[in-house]
Amino acid sequence: MPLTRISVPQHLSRESACRLADAVHQGLVATCGVPDDDRFQLISQFSPDFMIINPTFGGVSRTRDCSIVEVLFLRGRTDDQKRALYRAVVRGAQDAGFSADDVFVSLSENEHIDWSLGGGSAYKHLSQGNSD
Amino acid sequence: MPLTRISVPQHLSRESACRLADAVHQGLVATCGVPDDDRFQLISQFSPDFMIINPTFGGVSRTRDCSIVEVLFLRGRTDDQKRALYRAVVRGAQDAGFSADDVFVSLSENEHIDWSLGGGSAYKHLSQGNSD
Amino acid sequence: MPLTRISVPQHLSRESACRLADAVHQGLVATCGVPDDDRFQLISQFSPDFMIINPTFGGVSRTRDCSIVEVLFLRGRTDDQKRALYRAVVRGAQDAGFSADDVFVSLSENEHIDWSLGGGSAYKHLSQGNSD
Repeated sequence: MPLTRISVPQHLSRESACRLADAVHQGLVATCGVPDDDRFQLISQFSPDFMIINPTFGGVSRTRDCSIVEVLFLRGRTDDQKRALYRAVVRGAQDAGFSADDVFVSLSENEHIDWSLGGGSAYKHLSQGNSD
Repeated sequence: MPLTRISVPQHLSRESACRLADAVHQGLVATCGVPDDDRFQLISQFSPDFMIINPTFGGVSRTRDCSIVEVLFLRGRTDDQKRALYRAVVRGAQDAGFSADDVFVSLSENEHIDWSLGGGSAYKHLSQGNSD
Repeated sequence: MPLTRISVPQHLSRESACRLADAVHQGLVATCGVPDDDRFQLISQFSPDFMIINPTFGGVSRTRDCSIVEVLFLRGRTDDQKRALYRAVVRGAQDAGFSADDVFVSLSENEHIDWSLGGGSAYKHLSQGNSD
């Protein structure tokens, strides 16, 4: 139930975009306790005019391949988990051909009660049993 | 001033997407005290490659029609209101031809001061009078 | 590292959309302490069916040009800064030809640790030195 939005420049190949999505998911699994089958991702393409990205802010060097990853997930990951997530996503993105500096990540958080994964029920922890 | 994003697969008809948007709005009105004319929704279509949705995570059974509803609204709804919202949205979606398991909902919250509905003024409660 | 999404109706010219993006960025710089080179914006176009906007809710009068600005930024801006931001964005949008009532803004907040601007490192305050 992390919900991930990945925004890529339109010149990027479909395969590269999907491999970045793989890297994000694998990073979440490896560092944030996300189950492997808990994958919900949306990828959008943007024309150069409509994706305005400063090339150097924050001391990094971005190319026209720079992509933006937004993850909405449950509150409770530690700072160390988030740092490990950034490293893992970038490692995976590099394996997919991205420059490390072309992966911009932003996280937002909400609560268990803020998710319904289907069927009209609020999300249940495994530890919560079946009470809805 | 809830702001709703609805992400649908591109094979879904325009009418189905709009009927899902109706269901979400009517659910917010019925369960969360949203005025009927307080409607702000954005619908986006995704190709299969760019909408990656696990078919079974969370104990539900999703089809290729599965759509993702994201609502950003004011902090303060109770857990019971959120549960009622999920049920209401799914009932409306079923009336529009969706399977109950094909409606994925995620909520995020912010504060009154975080909204400007137009004119460059922060949103005002009716109870707050005209002070901006 | 504010991340801004701007959703515009598809009939709006590319130039108008980009000038609205300029107005949002300049407003953030002028009122919220955002550095001028800290600019990350995504613009999306919507067909009329897929951008459902009530024309009058909140006591404003929206036209078909109404556009939605969503800003995700660091927690900590004061209410006064947010009010100043709304005014500044609208002033800039008016200079770009928008009606004041056609600029809808919503803010969300997260924390320093929730951003990685590239390179797989968490965002560092200038005041934090180089410890990651």
